[in-house]
Amino acid sequence: MHSFLELSQQFEKDFSPRQFPESPANLYDAAQYILGIGGKRVRPIAVLMANELFAPIAEDALHVAKAIELFHNFSLIHDDIMDEAPIRRGMPTVHTKYGQSTALLSGDVMLVVAYEHLNKINESYLREVFALFSKTAREVCEGQQLDMDYEKIATVDFDAYMHMITLKTSVLLAACMQLGALIGGASLANQEQMYAFGKNIGIAFQIQDDYLDAFGNPEKFGKQVGGDIIANKKTFLLIHALNVANDEQKLALHTLINNQDADKVEKVLEIYKACKVDEWSEVLKEQYLQKAMASLEAINVLSARKTELEKLARFLLDREA
Amino acid sequence: MHSFLELSQQFEKDFSPRQFPESPANLYDAAQYILGIGGKRVRPIAVLMANELFAPIAEDALHVAKAIELFHNFSLIHDDIMDEAPIRRGMPTVHTKYGQSTALLSGDVMLVVAYEHLNKINESYLREVFALFSKTAREVCEGQQLDMDYEKIATVDFDAYMHMITLKTSVLLAACMQLGALIGGASLANQEQMYAFGKNIGIAFQIQDDYLDAFGNPEKFGKQVGGDIIANKKTFLLIHALNVANDEQKLALHTLINNQDADKVEKVLEIYKACKVDEWSEVLKEQYLQKAMASLEAINVLSARKTELEKLARFLLDREA
Repeated sequence: MHSFLELSQQFEKDFSPRQFPESPANLYDAAQYILGIGGKRVRPIAVLMANELFAPIAEDALHVAKAIELFHNFSLIHDDIMDEAPIRRGMPTVHTKYGQSTALLSGDVMLVVAYEHLNKINESYLREVFALFSKTAREVCEGQQLDMDYEKIATVDFDAYMHMITLKTSVLLAACMQLGALIGGASLANQEQMYAFGKNIGIAFQIQDDYLDAFGNPEKFGKQVGGDIIANKKTFLLIHALNVANDEQKLALHTLINNQDADKVEKVLEIYKACKVDEWSEVLKEQYLQKAMASLEAINVLSARKTELEKLARFLLDREA
Repeated sequence: MHSFLELSQQFEKDFSPRQFPESPANLYDAAQYILGIGGKRVRPIAVLMANELFAPIAEDALHVAKAIELFHNFSLIHDDIMDEAPIRRGMPTVHTKYGQSTALLSGDVMLVVAYEHLNKINESYLREVFALFSKTAREVCEGQQLDMDYEKIATVDFDAYMHMITLKTSVLLAACMQLGALIGGASLANQEQMYAFGKNIGIAFQIQDDYLDAFGNPEKFGKQVGGDIIANKKTFLLIHALNVANDEQKLALHTLINNQDADKVEKVLEIYKACKVDEWSEVLKEQYLQKAMASLEAINVLSARKTELEKLARFLLDREA
């Protein structure tokens, strides 16, 4: 079994050369640019690791891994346009650097190229892979739309937020795990456990992300702590706080949300702590990690083969404050 | 053999009910909206007609026809965002009605749903259909990028313009013809003739479109005559005029392009007529129509089967001034 690091080096060897034709240069330079500004390639490596759980890594897993990474970057380009985000990973976003029209179009073409990679795999599971990939792609779009919808309404309940965040950020990792397993010849039952494993890691990761945005150590977190509070973003923390707060705290929260006072972050955090939102979110994250681990546990392959995937889960979810 | 009208009524029966899930409503209402504002459905019907040239129309042809129409509308939504167009077919564009972010996302999801339709067809040609569809989708994106690139440069030569316009507007009709033939079990040679048939009709149609924009009868044309001239769009007419004009006419054209005088359209048209650009473009269109007809002629099925496709070509290319 290979480690995340080994597979990631192997993937980069294949993925770091230009992935697109030379011309039209504007279109494909923009697409190549976002691939070049990196990221940890968690999703494509997850495909490879899930594949190796069941069989030696197949060429087809690499095709699917590339398709997934292209899809992910397509969605980042388009999300950045929608969010009018100037910066991603410390670099100008594609639309900032290449203009909105070329950014839009380079996202489109990446989605098409993703499907072209899928079309290289063995016919025996071509249709299944296409189906899961497309269903997932559609769900990611739906999640993004719900996220925009929820920005415009005053309160969102916990289940609705969980549904949105699952679509927007977790089903893709879930699909990576299932696709790798599928190519490895896993039974449907094992594939479904792998899907659940990926999905629950994704949810736990999002809970952690919400937590770190509020309670993280600014030096380690790498972005402004309290950003979600300042932007009035619905998060697991805010939704839970509004659920458990007393009337006085609720009123205070609503007042704070509707203002941009200098001490807004500090005061919201005070209420969060009074409501024990920090402890609650740690517990919730741990619950989803345990769900994920139980799914991995349930898969009938030798435990020793599972070590690297367990390590990946802990690596993703052991980010300190 | 069925006529265009018959097939179009048959297609609408299947395509006019809602094509998307109910929720998220914003996302899918936007996608459904553009399907509802119509168009002649030339491309999907072309798939069905091309299919019927070789065999009774298959369920698979209908799946591909839907995929093509969804792809076409995806590209219209995104093009309208890029062009900041407020109106399409007399109705507000999707981004005008639903906002840019939802428009962008509803285009994305339509492309994914298009692939989901493709994934329903018989496995024996699934990979081939996916390959041609994706190649075409990529080329359409490339054509749109080249169109934007050419807007920013002073002059474009004839071959470059032909290349751009082929990608942007002709390869999709070409692919429709080939896909229908492929599903009908046509030989590769016949498929290639069908591709050429569609491509050359597409080019002839674009030449006609450029011609009508300058020389059309305003009452029949349905949009402002001279729009391309006012917008300084590169067209077959302008490129040819700049190729054949004498120095004085060239200078006059360049001066006119760089200004927005009240009599700009009138003066450019005078030069076009002096250069016989109108006659030239009629001849050019006829040449491409003849190329298209020669491809259809070369296909080894009974001539009687070809009548409806011939009629379609003439219907598309017999628009009067």
